[in-house]
Amino acid sequence: MIGEIISVGTELLLGQITNTNARFLAERLAELGIDSYYQQVVGDNRERLAAALRLALARSDLVVVGGGLGPTEDDLTKETVCEVLGLRLLPDPALAGEIRGVLHRRRSQVVDAAVAKQSLVPEGAVVLPNPVGTAPGLFVSAGGKYVVLLPGPPQELEPIVRRHLIPLLEDLLGRTAPGSSGEGGSGGRSFLFSRIVKVCYLGEPQVEEAVRDLIHCPNPTVAPYVSIGETHLRVTAKAGRAEEARSLVEATVAEICRREALRPYIFGLDDDTIALACGRRLTARGLTLAVAESLTGGLVGHLLTEVPGASRYFDRDLVVYSNQAKTSLLGVPPEVLAEHGAVSEQTAVAMARGALAASGAGVAVALTGIAGPTGGTAEKPVGLVYIALSGAGQPDECHRYMFGQDRRLVKQRAAHRALVLLWLRLGDHDVVRV
Amino acid sequence: MIGEIISVGTELLLGQITNTNARFLAERLAELGIDSYYQQVVGDNRERLAAALRLALARSDLVVVGGGLGPTEDDLTKETVCEVLGLRLLPDPALAGEIRGVLHRRRSQVVDAAVAKQSLVPEGAVVLPNPVGTAPGLFVSAGGKYVVLLPGPPQELEPIVRRHLIPLLEDLLGRTAPGSSGEGGSGGRSFLFSRIVKVCYLGEPQVEEAVRDLIHCPNPTVAPYVSIGETHLRVTAKAGRAEEARSLVEATVAEICRREALRPYIFGLDDDTIALACGRRLTARGLTLAVAESLTGGLVGHLLTEVPGASRYFDRDLVVYSNQAKTSLLGVPPEVLAEHGAVSEQTAVAMARGALAASGAGVAVALTGIAGPTGGTAEKPVGLVYIALSGAGQPDECHRYMFGQDRRLVKQRAAHRALVLLWLRLGDHDVVRV
Repeated sequence: MIGEIISVGTELLLGQITNTNARFLAERLAELGIDSYYQQVVGDNRERLAAALRLALARSDLVVVGGGLGPTEDDLTKETVCEVLGLRLLPDPALAGEIRGVLHRRRSQVVDAAVAKQSLVPEGAVVLPNPVGTAPGLFVSAGGKYVVLLPGPPQELEPIVRRHLIPLLEDLLGRTAPGSSGEGGSGGRSFLFSRIVKVCYLGEPQVEEAVRDLIHCPNPTVAPYVSIGETHLRVTAKAGRAEEARSLVEATVAEICRREALRPYIFGLDDDTIALACGRRLTARGLTLAVAESLTGGLVGHLLTEVPGASRYFDRDLVVYSNQAKTSLLGVPPEVLAEHGAVSEQTAVAMARGALAASGAGVAVALTGIAGPTGGTAEKPVGLVYIALSGAGQPDECHRYMFGQDRRLVKQRAAHRALVLLWLRLGDHDVVRV
Repeated sequence: MIGEIISVGTELLLGQITNTNARFLAERLAELGIDSYYQQVVGDNRERLAAALRLALARSDLVVVGGGLGPTEDDLTKETVCEVLGLRLLPDPALAGEIRGVLHRRRSQVVDAAVAKQSLVPEGAVVLPNPVGTAPGLFVSAGGKYVVLLPGPPQELEPIVRRHLIPLLEDLLGRTAPGSSGEGGSGGRSFLFSRIVKVCYLGEPQVEEAVRDLIHCPNPTVAPYVSIGETHLRVTAKAGRAEEARSLVEATVAEICRREALRPYIFGLDDDTIALACGRRLTARGLTLAVAESLTGGLVGHLLTEVPGASRYFDRDLVVYSNQAKTSLLGVPPEVLAEHGAVSEQTAVAMARGALAASGAGVAVALTGIAGPTGGTAEKPVGLVYIALSGAGQPDECHRYMFGQDRRLVKQRAAHRALVLLWLRLGDHDVVRV
């Protein structure tokens, strides 16, 4: 089966947003073993969208269209797909009821014309429920081709794909696959399988050096990617059977996890985050955590609480932006602030100790620094950050970093590094499950 | 002039990387006043790249191709462009010398075959030097059409575009414009200018209703977009002179800002965030802010401190994940927690009052809720959030919301809504600068 993605939206043509949907959808198609030769982007224009659809239908079996399902008049996807496929658009009263329910729960005003438009369904289409918004996904089958319509906002598109579209396509491939597998070509089916090994603390060159021999293998392929404070190794295998692709990948992942130079720094796989890895180690050691933040403003706590169940080990986070807050909440002595300044090793350590003492938690991490763009001096420039840790039965530690000039990046790098240092401090009680 | 972007790379079709080049290039074309109706993505395949090129040349005047200029055999862009345009590829000894220089400075090994391939230039092409890599950009003019070839890595593509391509296109547009302006046609030059008006609190249908007459105007166009908790109106004008486009946009933006139904909810323009708008009102009223968060885990503080200079009004954020923290840091009475629960109107109000009292700040906002995926009950389901405000010389207020099932979205919606409620509470002391 050949798939093609069409992204609809004038904002994409104007460069106002990045097309993250195309990447998300392409990755899902590849995982399903659906080949993809082209992607298209087209604006909110009926004629040109129709042309893009006709082109895609002429060369692909499955066309996934993202965007243009909203309630307003420049949302044209449903109408255009029906025009091209010669299908009628029919009202779906049950869907209208569900959309009203979503709006009521959100306490949004119900505009009848908008509900009427969004509850129109192409005849014979399968409705793919939208758990977070008013535009459902739609799956249309016509003339031996399949067209999928998805709402544009990623937070709506992604859950619809994960919950409804992938199972539906798996089912469809299961039905069409028998007899056509084996040969390459566009009819044959081959399976891609990928896993990502996530490494913290080390730079990309060090990680690459440790797996250089594997990077030159053709199947599975091993490719390094850099993220903030992390290096990811994507292991991808292709095979005629899904289990075969999976076992090729698992063998290489296990080999990577055995490498001496990497092992202490591999904190997880796939969607794992460093915050999740911290949670695993805190849970394994039965410790609770207190955080004290200055320049990061709450970002460390936000990252920690992205992990479901964080309340089991995350006690509190004291965001002490003012000096007064540092003293009254964490007991940082005014003399320390006066003598060494709010951005200093002494203040960072006092913050970590104060957070530990005030909370009764088992371990504490504290950050202070200068996010910029102003507030820097020759001695203490923008990007200077101190991170201190206290508790977990080890001596206090403090690290000094320079994280650059960009406020947003300084905050992100500092918060990420605080979690890496916490994870390393919590030691070797965690085994990455492969 | 009509432009079209073709991105070349199998890694894009597999969803392994996000197509940030397309956004970057689209934004530059829009700034130059070059219309764009389509974008394409195609893999490292000669036949399909040729098909994409032919299609683009049939419907556009300028085709910008990114990717496929590397030294390896699957880099086919130059060869394919020459095949489609009927041009020869000729060796350029001066360019070969420059490429050797780049490799020497990088201490990379010089592979003669790679240098020979990368220094081939389509006959008559303008070489656009690459300051950081070995593949130069190329500008080819043939049959009244223009084709630009650029290397795929963004750190190489972007400087070539900024330093060499934009001036070249400006020159080209200047040369082709005289005499041909005025009429629509693809030959004339026109300038695009956009601004975004940002509205909070109201839903997209309500916003659209308030500006329906403007949405039907052809120039400037007004298009609504939905973001989490916000509706954006993009106002775009096209004109023969840049100043003319700008003044058309400004007039429509001013008209939108005058609409009674929208005025109280327009918090900013363009890159403004609701956190920045809160900062403006806090500064205007000379108030400091204390935050108390439970389910959002520090996200409200993080958003507030994304704004440079937040330390002028942001005092502290008490992230009280445990009940013990709620009591010891905010003075929430244990009886209230026992009787009404941590997720209740009573607890939210006690948190806001406690934050105000503990900090001495002028206004406080507090959030408590159930982010999920577990912890919900029939009476208090996942997604239930209470947001309370205290201070700023007004009676305490508390609002109850249902923000859906997705942990990440519940946190985002709750944090955003807390800022919206804070901004509304701080009243009318802010004038959006137009």
